[in-house]
Amino acid sequence: MKKLVAEFIGTLWLVLGGCGSAVLAAGFPELGIGFVGVSLAFGLTVVTMAYAIGHISGCHLNPAVSIGLWIGGRFSSKELIPYIIAQVLGGITGAGVLYIIATGKPGFEVGGFAANGFGEHSPGNYTMASALITEIVMTFIFLFVILGATHSKAPKYLAGLAIGLCLTLIHLISIPVTNTSVNPARSTSQAIFADGGWAMGQLWLFWVAPIIGAILAGVVYKYLSPETND
Amino acid sequence: MKKLVAEFIGTLWLVLGGCGSAVLAAGFPELGIGFVGVSLAFGLTVVTMAYAIGHISGCHLNPAVSIGLWIGGRFSSKELIPYIIAQVLGGITGAGVLYIIATGKPGFEVGGFAANGFGEHSPGNYTMASALITEIVMTFIFLFVILGATHSKAPKYLAGLAIGLCLTLIHLISIPVTNTSVNPARSTSQAIFADGGWAMGQLWLFWVAPIIGAILAGVVYKYLSPETND
Amino acid sequence: MKKLVAEFIGTLWLVLGGCGSAVLAAGFPELGIGFVGVSLAFGLTVVTMAYAIGHISGCHLNPAVSIGLWIGGRFSSKELIPYIIAQVLGGITGAGVLYIIATGKPGFEVGGFAANGFGEHSPGNYTMASALITEIVMTFIFLFVILGATHSKAPKYLAGLAIGLCLTLIHLISIPVTNTSVNPARSTSQAIFADGGWAMGQLWLFWVAPIIGAILAGVVYKYLSPETND
Amino acid sequence: MKKLVAEFIGTLWLVLGGCGSAVLAAGFPELGIGFVGVSLAFGLTVVTMAYAIGHISGCHLNPAVSIGLWIGGRFSSKELIPYIIAQVLGGITGAGVLYIIATGKPGFEVGGFAANGFGEHSPGNYTMASALITEIVMTFIFLFVILGATHSKAPKYLAGLAIGLCLTLIHLISIPVTNTSVNPARSTSQAIFADGGWAMGQLWLFWVAPIIGAILAGVVYKYLSPETND
Repeated sequence: MKKLVAEFIGTLWLVLGGCGSAVLAAGFPELGIGFVGVSLAFGLTVVTMAYAIGHISGCHLNPAVSIGLWIGGRFSSKELIPYIIAQVLGGITGAGVLYIIATGKPGFEVGGFAANGFGEHSPGNYTMASALITEIVMTFIFLFVILGATHSKAPKYLAGLAIGLCLTLIHLISIPVTNTSVNPARSTSQAIFADGGWAMGQLWLFWVAPIIGAILAGVVYKYLSPETND
Repeated sequence: MKKLVAEFIGTLWLVLGGCGSAVLAAGFPELGIGFVGVSLAFGLTVVTMAYAIGHISGCHLNPAVSIGLWIGGRFSSKELIPYIIAQVLGGITGAGVLYIIATGKPGFEVGGFAANGFGEHSPGNYTMASALITEIVMTFIFLFVILGATHSKAPKYLAGLAIGLCLTLIHLISIPVTNTSVNPARSTSQAIFADGGWAMGQLWLFWVAPIIGAILAGVVYKYLSPETND
Repeated sequence: MKKLVAEFIGTLWLVLGGCGSAVLAAGFPELGIGFVGVSLAFGLTVVTMAYAIGHISGCHLNPAVSIGLWIGGRFSSKELIPYIIAQVLGGITGAGVLYIIATGKPGFEVGGFAANGFGEHSPGNYTMASALITEIVMTFIFLFVILGATHSKAPKYLAGLAIGLCLTLIHLISIPVTNTSVNPARSTSQAIFADGGWAMGQLWLFWVAPIIGAILAGVVYKYLSPETND
Repeated sequence: MKKLVAEFIGTLWLVLGGCGSAVLAAGFPELGIGFVGVSLAFGLTVVTMAYAIGHISGCHLNPAVSIGLWIGGRFSSKELIPYIIAQVLGGITGAGVLYIIATGKPGFEVGGFAANGFGEHSPGNYTMASALITEIVMTFIFLFVILGATHSKAPKYLAGLAIGLCLTLIHLISIPVTNTSVNPARSTSQAIFADGGWAMGQLWLFWVAPIIGAILAGVVYKYLSPETND
């Protein structure tokens, strides 16, 4: 139960911090943080939680991460569904807190919130095929780095930093394509609050693609990894 | 006494570095550092001091941090008030040094300095309710990360980095709402120098909200933390 | 063979991440990541892969790195050519994935992709002589830092971070001059996809200069290094 | 002798990297790195060299650092003058390499290069008094962090990162005031190449102020530091 509370709080922070920086600060006139700031913010939610709750729940904060670790033989089957539920609920709660804060600005319009999308809802109008490939490849590498950096032969104190900075890097590349998901809990949390219903209609891609990428990474890393493992 | 001198110098640096970057460099024409630079600066004041004085005083630099650690059972009652006094005096001294430097620019006007505010004094005109929720939640997470990253089961060499980067992240999210406090000493130091008296009038919120957030984090983390503790 | 797969995936990521951030995100209107974001992205490809595959293949991702380590006595002759082939193939594959994603944007034109160049193809129109000196000196320092940070007397857990951030720094300096290579595999991967043929015509410089810099660093560091070595 | 070669190369890199990012990349149209990028670049020159030559020479790269460490009882008298000479020569050589690269751009004008200045030569026209206070206080904190982070009770693997990021932070605050020195070797190297002679005329301040700050830090930290020391 403590693990699930930790995952709930951690995913709440990932959504509040990452999506919050996008909704509140990215486009602030003259001084706004832009895509670089949003990329840093998402990565730092993971860095900070990795050191805060890594020793409690492992700090997954993402259904694709839990699935990839499970395929890679690092996470037990019986914890998988409870973790995913805690992550989705945490993400939605984080989105709710962000919604309350954001609506305290006179004239605020929720619009797409920080939802993920493709086609006309991609920041750069990228097609569904581009979005699908992007999310599969980005999640593949994300899980590949997670599996590598938490391997017993890697310098373990640095894993939290390397993994968080990987999420920063993924955002530096792919915000223009899909607004960057690689995390079904993050996508779901925003789709619920976004105006107009399109985000719910496109949400399937942000569950399917990250999960495909995560499964591929689990399989490939297992082949590559040195025998000894924790 | 050495601990108090360390907290004094550390908080001086937090205010001079963080607020200094905002007052001197944020809006410099064409090349200014914007909210990303200010966010980095605040975080790096903590990173640098964590490694410089962490082994002397613990490097709190913030009354809310001292209170949260005390509630969480990591800091003694009898040191609490002296630490807070040293932090507030250090912050005011840092603001004084900044004031002297800043007034060396022809035509400089102090305006709001780098004070925290809500309503018409929020950078994005966010309401008092938004400001209150933001400061409570941000300080809650800040202390949650501090309590987690300094727990005996976390990789302790990285704590200073994770905690400093958490402050960077908090600024990336919330500068538009309150100019970001999560630190009553930082808010007090700027309110004293700001023009027009409004900052002193709104200062209560930047004591009350961070302290509420810190107390909540102390209670929640105590429930979550593994038994063994330092 | 596992080492070569690791180098292939790692170099794929270096090109997809570094060049991808440049092609997709650098110039996005209003919020684009600019040279700072691209510099961060290149560096973070190395940071992330260092912790993911450092314990598998050593994470070279770059023919100049393999050659510099070989000259410096840290890498075996018989692995040199297979590593370079895996790196070049990985880079080209990364460029191919990027090409497919990028062309999903309506109206996308490949132009110079993220190719390296000099003279009229330098971002700042720097001469061939400037380009040559820049690439030699930057690669010299890059290998010097790699040889130093991976020396047995250096704190080895931090090597991946220091080396990745060195690549970030090199980009912060030299993107205006050559679009920054210091890596023949990266240059080759982009020259193949760039329009107009000029990038293939200038490609020789981005093999010759990095290799000269790497060899010099191997020689100089050998002279400087304390006797004990791993 | 190896120590002096290491200091020479390290300071060459500090000037080429830090000042180079300012001269070549800071103001590049649309995508330039601005003060944030220059601040990062200066800090990363120290991070990278700390892990590359820290175990050879201690990686001072700065006469004020050598003097502060000497006052603080961490550096021997007889090495002081040779270190300072190697640093100044390394800095000038770095500036020379930068000059050669920079003049490869058609229409380049050297102007102030990346020299430090006050009054009309301060980026924000700050007075001599502001400049003097800024350089003293910034160097004081820089040495205070260096002495703290390299103390035997601090987590030593992180010292290079904390110290480099401290230099980044110092630049985020004070570029508008003096273009940031805290390093007489860096200032000297640029003053020699700057047009018009004003930089040589103002150079005294960028020797005097950093040395005063460094001496103060040596004295204060000695008082604060726990008895055990390396």
